[in-house]
Amino acid sequence: MSETSDIQPLQPLIVALRRLPGVGVKTAQRMAFHLMQRDQDGARALAQALVQTLDSVVHCQRCHTFSHQTMCPICSDAGRDAARLCVVETPADLAAMERTGAYRGYYFVLMGRISPMDGVGAADLGLSQLLARAQDGQVQEVILATSFTTEGEATAHMATELLKARGLQVTRLARGVPVGSELEYVDLGTIAHALVERR
Amino acid sequence: MSETSDIQPLQPLIVALRRLPGVGVKTAQRMAFHLMQRDQDGARALAQALVQTLDSVVHCQRCHTFSHQTMCPICSDAGRDAARLCVVETPADLAAMERTGAYRGYYFVLMGRISPMDGVGAADLGLSQLLARAQDGQVQEVILATSFTTEGEATAHMATELLKARGLQVTRLARGVPVGSELEYVDLGTIAHALVERR
Ligand SMILES: [Zn+2]
Ligand SMILES: [Zn+2]
Repeated sequence: MSETSDIQPLQPLIVALRRLPGVGVKTAQRMAFHLMQRDQDGARALAQALVQTLDSVVHCQRCHTFSHQTMCPICSDAGRDAARLCVVETPADLAAMERTGAYRGYYFVLMGRISPMDGVGAADLGLSQLLARAQDGQVQEVILATSFTTEGEATAHMATELLKARGLQVTRLARGVPVGSELEYVDLGTIAHALVERR
Repeated sequence: MSETSDIQPLQPLIVALRRLPGVGVKTAQRMAFHLMQRDQDGARALAQALVQTLDSVVHCQRCHTFSHQTMCPICSDAGRDAARLCVVETPADLAAMERTGAYRGYYFVLMGRISPMDGVGAADLGLSQLLARAQDGQVQEVILATSFTTEGEATAHMATELLKARGLQVTRLARGVPVGSELEYVDLGTIAHALVERR
């Protein structure tokens, strides 16, 4: 195929769009065409959002979630319960926990879960940072709120081993959360219930 | 929901990603997380590709395809057959025609097709520009190579009416192209065959 960028000027954009997860050639072509032909404002907005996010978002040094500051608003809030530390997979899961209104402790965000398929192992999740965080002398209970999927369970299992070996009390959200689901999309009542019945 | 951008710093990026066709909230969240957590180089590359494409790509003033120049390489090539004008829906369809090696005329790219669902009517396709282009005094045959889908057929039908009313000879790719398929994904042999048997 002699697809020079002269005949296909959208080719560099198509290549870049393919780096988005789940986007193949056909989808990337459709996206590039749509942006350039029907929504150049959208293309400009996306470029701007990417640059601004890259420039302004860091990881909270305490809980690892995305944040505009070196310490996120939750970690900076001295009024929360320092005896509880809730471990979630993603910032979206943290947001779901917050929306229940049933939790007043702090968080540690793994920013992923163990996934051999995607090459994400224990080291990538920064479990050693979790151990350090949990041993601050104030945390009395680590609540594991990883997903109830195979990978989420494997992550919880590994975290439990490591934490218990250091004498920390570890609980897991009650299995009221539907098996196979991702926390972020579970209704708030179920999450709140599972939190109360944690074991 | 109290999702301030303080707790959800990726929210502006998620909103921007949702402007991509076929991308809902869940997909946009996954994309934003992936880019910021696992592929910041990809995020930077995408922002750059968007800006460069917006800055450098225009429509060829003669055939309307995307181009780096005001006149695209094909329209600038004086060695082609000025008696044939092939009408396609998208630059990707043009590229597919070119790859067959079976066509040496010029093109007119509609940059879409009639689609009442998406609010794309005859005016949006610039059919009047097609009429002007086809009446340059050199074009003897207009070959309609729009898709063999309902919308592509409707587009071909409308173009045929308008072109014939001006005394132009109009042909359509032979129906060797599988019905319901988009030209871009048809194997080259089928396209070449359909071109020879155009009616
Ligand atoms: Zn934090
Ligand atoms: Zn051109």
